[in-house]
Amino acid sequence: MHEFELIEQCFARSGYRRNDVSIGVGDDGAVIQVRDGFDLVVTTDTMVQGVHFFPNVDPRSLGHKLVAVNVSDLAAMGAEPCWLSLGLTLPVVDNEWLKAFAEGLSETADYYNCQLVGGDTTRGPLTLTLCAKGIVPRGKALSRAGAKVGDYVYVTGTLGDSALGLKVEQGQCEISKKHRGHILQRFHYPTARVAIGQALRTIASSCMDISDGLCGDLPHILKRSGVGAIIDVAKIPMSQALKDSCDWQQALQCALSGGEDYELLFTVPEDKRGSLEVLLSPYGVPVTCIGRITGAAGKLELRHLDQPFVYHHSGYQHF
Amino acid sequence: MHEFELIEQCFARSGYRRNDVSIGVGDDGAVIQVRDGFDLVVTTDTMVQGVHFFPNVDPRSLGHKLVAVNVSDLAAMGAEPCWLSLGLTLPVVDNEWLKAFAEGLSETADYYNCQLVGGDTTRGPLTLTLCAKGIVPRGKALSRAGAKVGDYVYVTGTLGDSALGLKVEQGQCEISKKHRGHILQRFHYPTARVAIGQALRTIASSCMDISDGLCGDLPHILKRSGVGAIIDVAKIPMSQALKDSCDWQQALQCALSGGEDYELLFTVPEDKRGSLEVLLSPYGVPVTCIGRITGAAGKLELRHLDQPFVYHHSGYQHF
Repeated sequence: MHEFELIEQCFARSGYRRNDVSIGVGDDGAVIQVRDGFDLVVTTDTMVQGVHFFPNVDPRSLGHKLVAVNVSDLAAMGAEPCWLSLGLTLPVVDNEWLKAFAEGLSETADYYNCQLVGGDTTRGPLTLTLCAKGIVPRGKALSRAGAKVGDYVYVTGTLGDSALGLKVEQGQCEISKKHRGHILQRFHYPTARVAIGQALRTIASSCMDISDGLCGDLPHILKRSGVGAIIDVAKIPMSQALKDSCDWQQALQCALSGGEDYELLFTVPEDKRGSLEVLLSPYGVPVTCIGRITGAAGKLELRHLDQPFVYHHSGYQHF
Repeated sequence: MHEFELIEQCFARSGYRRNDVSIGVGDDGAVIQVRDGFDLVVTTDTMVQGVHFFPNVDPRSLGHKLVAVNVSDLAAMGAEPCWLSLGLTLPVVDNEWLKAFAEGLSETADYYNCQLVGGDTTRGPLTLTLCAKGIVPRGKALSRAGAKVGDYVYVTGTLGDSALGLKVEQGQCEISKKHRGHILQRFHYPTARVAIGQALRTIASSCMDISDGLCGDLPHILKRSGVGAIIDVAKIPMSQALKDSCDWQQALQCALSGGEDYELLFTVPEDKRGSLEVLLSPYGVPVTCIGRITGAAGKLELRHLDQPFVYHHSGYQHF
């Protein structure tokens, strides 16, 4: 049982301890006191070697990313992230790798005030499944359904950086030394917009996080809400690093079809636009209006400065 | 997106719908109303092809087993199973396989009044991670810690059937036609002792489910409770099918070191033994006293009719 103890040790390091966890790792299950008057929010993300990450990826950043992408889903629901369960399938026990992975995971869990409460470690091809759980005041969760005709469409931060980071890592693109750090940081260490998501509870009519590119994800809101949208591509926020590193067409492709931005995409009714600026100003994260919701159910119309803009979206498909 | 829609379809079939699920499959996360005054119980189990199941396993039984083994962990905590999240990693989309797997999973989820509330489907080597969640009245969860010196050690049902079933499937053992059905049923379609687990909340001082054999699992209770145990191997309950199918030594090995029984192993203080019989009698599941808790911390002592019994336990090790 030597190696199992090692695994336990790696994940039992003094991380964030929530006082609502009655029983954590080490029993048949974890026992958690969910605050009365709150709803539970649950999300699951799997990352597979060779599909979601390169075999030579820094295990620390992998641990970070696994937590961040799950917490990002909770953020999109307006939830406060709380508890994590890890399904960890490993081909072999590589002490150094495991230690770094566990550190990345724990550091990021700590950052978001989350506690790893349990999981299962098995032998097999490297596959990581995290089930993240959070809470939200009862009835206050944000969802993809709820966008109404006339609502304004917003995104947080900038889009496309992570997609460029992937191209850089794949050797498909060279960028200046000045921007390299920022772009790779955005790819390997995405930030979940937790505070923004919570602030949006009383403002947004719908919300989701962008993991498959704006053109891949906005249709989910349109479908669930039974509406359409017009987006002005000229308004899509891009970082200076992205704009400096490729031509506009390429940058736009990263922003529209690139994955793993983990920014929030949300809609706001006209009468709440005033509160938006006030409520979000303390967070120092830019939010940008990029379009409006229309009644053309399911139709995503792109425009560029009032002209129709033709764009063929080709997102990542697993199968 | 054809294949993703197919996957969605498979899992969206009219299954059990809980009225405490505000948002189920199809958003960034699920939203669940946890009953006020209850604790949340969370458990995770991963099954990997070639490690936990044969490549040619009936996908329907695989779907069943994945749910049952997770629900068994909830049962061991005294919890009422409620919600499931599935991390499904598939090498290819095989319609027939997927349909049968989803049916097995849904049928068993229905049986336990559980709802699949979300998950993630990805491409990669066949790996299944289920995160099951349940509820228990606040502070009433059973755990592995709590066994006291003098407590009686009990198990539900019979031990060793599933281990024999594995041997049969591996062609290592032949059994009579009369017993074959029962033994393979126990291996492929284990039953989680949910009702018993809940009834034990007020009686048991500690509880867990047996997934790695009695000799592999009882030490967890001993360690967490800081106690020892004396077990009389002659008292270990075995099915007629197991006793008829191999000699006593082999049967005992199945019962002591075989895995996947999913019976409950629990301890009961002397003054609660009377209530035990009364409270459990409606369920029609035998419970058997097999030994007592001692003060010899961490020591598991096997006896056979008051004589020391030497046995070398070799459980399954992943690494």
